[in-house]
Amino acid sequence: MSKLRGRFGEPTGDDMQRFSSSIEIDLEMLDEDIDGTRAHVTMLAEAGMLGDDEAARLLEGLEHVRAELRAGSWVPGDELEDIHMAVEARLVERLGEPAKKVHTARSRNDQVATDVRLWLRRNLQALSDELGELLSALLSRAESDGDVLMAGYTHLQRGQPILLGHLLLAHAWPVSRDRQRVADALTRIDLNPLGACAMAGTPHPIRRERTTELLGFGGMVENAMDAVAARDHEQEVAALCAIVAGHLSRMAEELVLWSSTEFGFVRLSERYATGSSIMPQKRNPDAAELLRGRSARIQAGVTGLLSLCRALPMAYNRDLQETRELLFQVVSSTRESVRIATGVWNTLSFRRDRFEQELRGDFSLATEVADWLASRGVPFREAHEVSGRMVRHCDEQGTDLSSLSPEAAADFHPLLAEADRELWIDPRAAAERRTSRGGTASAEIRRQIGLLRATTA
Amino acid sequence: MSKLRGRFGEPTGDDMQRFSSSIEIDLEMLDEDIDGTRAHVTMLAEAGMLGDDEAARLLEGLEHVRAELRAGSWVPGDELEDIHMAVEARLVERLGEPAKKVHTARSRNDQVATDVRLWLRRNLQALSDELGELLSALLSRAESDGDVLMAGYTHLQRGQPILLGHLLLAHAWPVSRDRQRVADALTRIDLNPLGACAMAGTPHPIRRERTTELLGFGGMVENAMDAVAARDHEQEVAALCAIVAGHLSRMAEELVLWSSTEFGFVRLSERYATGSSIMPQKRNPDAAELLRGRSARIQAGVTGLLSLCRALPMAYNRDLQETRELLFQVVSSTRESVRIATGVWNTLSFRRDRFEQELRGDFSLATEVADWLASRGVPFREAHEVSGRMVRHCDEQGTDLSSLSPEAAADFHPLLAEADRELWIDPRAAAERRTSRGGTASAEIRRQIGLLRATTA
Amino acid sequence: MSKLRGRFGEPTGDDMQRFSSSIEIDLEMLDEDIDGTRAHVTMLAEAGMLGDDEAARLLEGLEHVRAELRAGSWVPGDELEDIHMAVEARLVERLGEPAKKVHTARSRNDQVATDVRLWLRRNLQALSDELGELLSALLSRAESDGDVLMAGYTHLQRGQPILLGHLLLAHAWPVSRDRQRVADALTRIDLNPLGACAMAGTPHPIRRERTTELLGFGGMVENAMDAVAARDHEQEVAALCAIVAGHLSRMAEELVLWSSTEFGFVRLSERYATGSSIMPQKRNPDAAELLRGRSARIQAGVTGLLSLCRALPMAYNRDLQETRELLFQVVSSTRESVRIATGVWNTLSFRRDRFEQELRGDFSLATEVADWLASRGVPFREAHEVSGRMVRHCDEQGTDLSSLSPEAAADFHPLLAEADRELWIDPRAAAERRTSRGGTASAEIRRQIGLLRATTA
Amino acid sequence: MSKLRGRFGEPTGDDMQRFSSSIEIDLEMLDEDIDGTRAHVTMLAEAGMLGDDEAARLLEGLEHVRAELRAGSWVPGDELEDIHMAVEARLVERLGEPAKKVHTARSRNDQVATDVRLWLRRNLQALSDELGELLSALLSRAESDGDVLMAGYTHLQRGQPILLGHLLLAHAWPVSRDRQRVADALTRIDLNPLGACAMAGTPHPIRRERTTELLGFGGMVENAMDAVAARDHEQEVAALCAIVAGHLSRMAEELVLWSSTEFGFVRLSERYATGSSIMPQKRNPDAAELLRGRSARIQAGVTGLLSLCRALPMAYNRDLQETRELLFQVVSSTRESVRIATGVWNTLSFRRDRFEQELRGDFSLATEVADWLASRGVPFREAHEVSGRMVRHCDEQGTDLSSLSPEAAADFHPLLAEADRELWIDPRAAAERRTSRGGTASAEIRRQIGLLRATTA
Repeated sequence: MSKLRGRFGEPTGDDMQRFSSSIEIDLEMLDEDIDGTRAHVTMLAEAGMLGDDEAARLLEGLEHVRAELRAGSWVPGDELEDIHMAVEARLVERLGEPAKKVHTARSRNDQVATDVRLWLRRNLQALSDELGELLSALLSRAESDGDVLMAGYTHLQRGQPILLGHLLLAHAWPVSRDRQRVADALTRIDLNPLGACAMAGTPHPIRRERTTELLGFGGMVENAMDAVAARDHEQEVAALCAIVAGHLSRMAEELVLWSSTEFGFVRLSERYATGSSIMPQKRNPDAAELLRGRSARIQAGVTGLLSLCRALPMAYNRDLQETRELLFQVVSSTRESVRIATGVWNTLSFRRDRFEQELRGDFSLATEVADWLASRGVPFREAHEVSGRMVRHCDEQGTDLSSLSPEAAADFHPLLAEADRELWIDPRAAAERRTSRGGTASAEIRRQIGLLRATTA
Repeated sequence: MSKLRGRFGEPTGDDMQRFSSSIEIDLEMLDEDIDGTRAHVTMLAEAGMLGDDEAARLLEGLEHVRAELRAGSWVPGDELEDIHMAVEARLVERLGEPAKKVHTARSRNDQVATDVRLWLRRNLQALSDELGELLSALLSRAESDGDVLMAGYTHLQRGQPILLGHLLLAHAWPVSRDRQRVADALTRIDLNPLGACAMAGTPHPIRRERTTELLGFGGMVENAMDAVAARDHEQEVAALCAIVAGHLSRMAEELVLWSSTEFGFVRLSERYATGSSIMPQKRNPDAAELLRGRSARIQAGVTGLLSLCRALPMAYNRDLQETRELLFQVVSSTRESVRIATGVWNTLSFRRDRFEQELRGDFSLATEVADWLASRGVPFREAHEVSGRMVRHCDEQGTDLSSLSPEAAADFHPLLAEADRELWIDPRAAAERRTSRGGTASAEIRRQIGLLRATTA
Repeated sequence: MSKLRGRFGEPTGDDMQRFSSSIEIDLEMLDEDIDGTRAHVTMLAEAGMLGDDEAARLLEGLEHVRAELRAGSWVPGDELEDIHMAVEARLVERLGEPAKKVHTARSRNDQVATDVRLWLRRNLQALSDELGELLSALLSRAESDGDVLMAGYTHLQRGQPILLGHLLLAHAWPVSRDRQRVADALTRIDLNPLGACAMAGTPHPIRRERTTELLGFGGMVENAMDAVAARDHEQEVAALCAIVAGHLSRMAEELVLWSSTEFGFVRLSERYATGSSIMPQKRNPDAAELLRGRSARIQAGVTGLLSLCRALPMAYNRDLQETRELLFQVVSSTRESVRIATGVWNTLSFRRDRFEQELRGDFSLATEVADWLASRGVPFREAHEVSGRMVRHCDEQGTDLSSLSPEAAADFHPLLAEADRELWIDPRAAAERRTSRGGTASAEIRRQIGLLRATTA
Repeated sequence: MSKLRGRFGEPTGDDMQRFSSSIEIDLEMLDEDIDGTRAHVTMLAEAGMLGDDEAARLLEGLEHVRAELRAGSWVPGDELEDIHMAVEARLVERLGEPAKKVHTARSRNDQVATDVRLWLRRNLQALSDELGELLSALLSRAESDGDVLMAGYTHLQRGQPILLGHLLLAHAWPVSRDRQRVADALTRIDLNPLGACAMAGTPHPIRRERTTELLGFGGMVENAMDAVAARDHEQEVAALCAIVAGHLSRMAEELVLWSSTEFGFVRLSERYATGSSIMPQKRNPDAAELLRGRSARIQAGVTGLLSLCRALPMAYNRDLQETRELLFQVVSSTRESVRIATGVWNTLSFRRDRFEQELRGDFSLATEVADWLASRGVPFREAHEVSGRMVRHCDEQGTDLSSLSPEAAADFHPLLAEADRELWIDPRAAAERRTSRGGTASAEIRRQIGLLRATTA
């Protein structure tokens, strides 16, 4: 079957056929296209616009085409332009007349809008599950290794001693928000555009409620022009994917740092790293680097989708075809990245003893002194200065805080004579002391794990 | 008061002071900073970490600083680095000792996180109201001018006759989704980070529930490191603003087109257009053009925020300071754009008679014939061909469909002998016939106006 | 041959193999990879690091692998990771021992850098030629149709009458600058990185001058670490492609406008448009719309490449692998877009008489009166006001400037009594009067065509 | 003087005045605006379109307005819209009649195009100088500290020993390319658009050659419509700035890493860092972090400029006003960033002994063994395996390569009996051995310094 060339005398140029074909990317949503047509056919038959027998033959024919395309036993050429024309053409070849009735009260505009929404729904639901697994992986690591003592960094400078669990949860909470964003986006995606036709609806007595039910949509797009022209749901999905990818990239940045000889805090599993035939100690954190790099590509997709739609008048314009490849790449890449990140976290090993010893008496414990003095009524800025002087004193002596007895400390502030020396020596105690809500103390870590576990149940 | 230079012997360079200061942009969130500190002081006093008298003096002092900064009677220099240091420095100058206690159990990290969230909450609530007004403006125009008949376009080619109300609603629905996105984002923004301190919480007996209540937050950020390091809520806000701006830009594109001599469908109010001293007919649609251009700048902010945070390790890094200017510009620009768009819609005039006459018998009515035949059982692809042949016949004769009587039409398909000639002549009837849910018929327009009005009540 | 897994006990995970493989995209640069290895082998042999016989067998073997891969008779799996490992593995299978010497004084880092530069050189040279053809197409249209009179627009409002050639040249000049940018970029791309090895050079007595000569490079990258770590040439290429695509998109925007019923100025060839089986007058300007949409995707690539490299430390990081897919898509898409645009311009038809008649006496000729008065010594702002009053007078009378005789005009300014009425009536004369350098007069158009033709010779 | 409101009855709305005013950003190019008008006035007088006396008064008046605006003694309000109208209005107030002649043969379109090109020329020339200073700083550090031995990294894993100078040059070469890009862009910017008028040129006998000469332009924009509508030179500038910023960000990333306790390789000067009053060892690399963050904002500007212009028809559209703020921010931010980076490099100190000791016998020297064997005729892949086995042996014994005598090494390959043990022990010798062109040997570093010095002379 030829394309809708009307009275055109000249065929589309070969260059234009390649330039304009979306067949390849469309095959991603083969199932959605067939499912959408099935629902339309069923509704047409129920509403008397198709005979029951015709409908039955069409439904069977559609399954046949689905099987052929899946198996690759029939490969549509670029001259068929898109998946919709390809399926219809194949159906006409096979069934003749009834196949010509399928496009009653439907246009390619609402058909493709339906396909994309179904594709997004399926993929976002999968993404939500995958994010749930990533969240579980982080929580499991927080349970198994959350007690490891490490330096907490700001400006990549050691700040205060923390427990690893605290940091793992700082990666987990954003993932839980990512899942909320997916759920929020789904409320705007899970709406049926079918029946909008070209942009103005139809005089035929269609029942959109019925296709909504058959396709399991949560509601309908209420304006036919909006149904075919809007792409804000695609932009929203791309943006949330880019935010997800950004979170994975921040994790990845830390894993790359921690894998260095200098930090030496973590070893990625051999499944996700590459080695060197010559340097056995080497374990390049490739998966983390690729996650980081991939996030830039995913974020680029947002730029593309925002820019593309920015200045298009109503209603459908062919430019909009170009959103699909960007969108599908963004979503598929994000899903793959989430799975890889989950695998990485599930299989890496922490070098549990890497930091504990070297943090003992470290100057990062100076904050403990200041906080203790403040709790005894010394104004915080003054307490801050006292501990600053202590630190400078040690630094000038070439020692660290562990060298100071309470008596020596009392030279800096008389109240310190009453302090327990462990205050400025024991990094684990310092971490455990931070029991304020959201603090790094282990009880707080356990509490948060409970909260987040509840969201993945 | 000098900055926290510790034992540094050398001052910050002048170039670096300018490069690193955020004072100017921080003044945008002066109120939020003062309010946040007020809540912290109140909580400290209630928890016994500040005397009641100290607290009272601090609260009064804070109001004094707020008034000074608002009035511009005191202008902090770049050497004070940011609004937080500036306020504290001024407070110490004024009150001495008690002012040095304000930073007990607080760091600049959680303070700025609090300020930004309060700023965003205020601005997003305002944006939601402003979007509501834009929505109302569109609905009012749909009520007052929704019956105007016009061409519906795809590919900027005339497709089918529609009512203007149908198109106005196609712009209104996205705005209503924009408001949903604002509401969704607010659930993630309206969480209190105060008490997270530098990143690890505090050993002081603070009560985060109390500052949450005092600041009217809907909940708390549950992890201290997440509280100071996360920026996904900022990225989400930027993305939703870019989506809003994209919607305004699509409207603007149409207004620019419609303002041309060639389309001639609309006249922008003189409030939002510029004229020419020489061409009185000229009315440049400047507001629309600027809205379109501004949307590109707003979208650029998304790129910036996504790229900036992509590869930062935990927790706070100074890079994050740079998100603020991007974010504030994006949000403020979006709010201004929404208000301008509302003004434009409220004041423009439609040239109601521009298209109706020329659409009569127009070939875009050919679809009516095809749909009518399909409703009589002719397969749609065949019906399509029939009307195609009718059109080609007229085109070759140099006439249009209005020249065809039912008898003449019957030459193309016998069933057409029974058809009413108005079918292919009357564009308004064609529009009104599309009564399917979401179609362009006026009853559908009224129904949708009702649905959307309900969301703005 | 297995990958460089060193002493790793566990294989790379399947998920990771798919995630990290670049084989598919690498096949784009198969020829470059083989050519680079040929040059390396030849140099090694000349420098005595390979026997002549070994070299001969390797060169032959490489051609064999090239043929196999081209023909698809051997398809490397994802487990071979990239094209470099695949070719080496196949070579070892075929030739054994000598193939193991190929990597003397070479690493994958300098190899891939070489391949990408060769790929870019080939594609940019082709792009330059294609831009030349686009330029020729525009110049040919300026020659054949440049005399068509049309409205020149600002703000999409008719401003002054111009000749079509003037506007076509306004599209042509940017294309000639695009070619300059390609040439500029090539000076930075056409440099040989081979011999940089991993990042530090090599102790082997290689002769980089020789591979430079063999591969036809214009020079060498002078620092080994820069050679493997830099991606600024890729970013520059992406940016210039985005600028090209932006130019095509501006052309496309005009073609879409001009194809509308309302403007009706142009008809795209059937090769580049789609029709409707039902509306014979319809000719959707699909090629133009797709060019416009595609430009957004190309521009997204710039975002990706800039963001990806932004915060990577020296030297090679695996993230950099991700630049390739972005880069290749950007360049290939741009080349295809240029070819399509060329085809569109070469085959479209202008409706030559569309505007001429309706511009006669049009208010846009009011500028002529002002300019004429200014040339007689009336201050321009005053002259401007005079013609403004003339126009308002006509507008109020419901006529246009063609109704005014010189005597009537003299009421507005006495000097106008001497003016030739054609001054404010004849749009073609108005256009031809603008003979200042770069003006719309036909002599200026011819002059510019000559200048640009000279660049394409 | 009122704006060009023509016969408009209603004034521009206040909201619209704020939304559309560009006065604030325009003041950045005050000098360029005055200079451009001076040249125009001089040319008009020479061509007889202004009296000599009028011209003299205008030139003097222009200087007066320049002085007033510079001093802030006159502040134009938003109602004057832009700098051009403001200057003209002030001139008319002061001089009356002659000021009304200034706009003969000029429009705001070519005026603003001229201003922006002059602004860009001035700023790009300054940027080029500043990049030259950054380059000099890097070369000076390569001279003073280039002999420091350090680990060269790939994947942030230690790869091979290198000299610091090698890495500094890997940062210097991109800067030299950045300067080339600035120079290339200048050839396209340094062209005079003045005389293009609104878009079509003028019938007045202007002499564009003369204003070209007066303003020191290298040539003319040859097409009037191109002169006012093109923005590719702005996009090109933004892209090159983003590439510059990306280079600064890569440097910054390394400085942040090297400033960590774990790497401990560098100390930023106190001028560019912030300390902590409590942790004396802490020196947050703020300048580096801000450079990294700023680069994201600069790159966002590219997105904005590419997206903004993408779909605008010819010629001037008001959207284009919005490019200015993006462009000026990008360029100014880039210039500031380059200056800060220069200051940072000039003042930081390297911890020269940080790595040398710990690299002795490090496994990264295993490559030396492989290269040595390959130079004795052992196929490289085999040599690679030999050294791999040596390394694994040591690793299993818990030692490193320094423990192996040549005799012990001979167990792995007989040829190694002849090798000098220093081969696998001495990291400095390993670095110095890489004398291939571009390698890390100190002679190569000196050679490159010479090449680059020559470009800054």
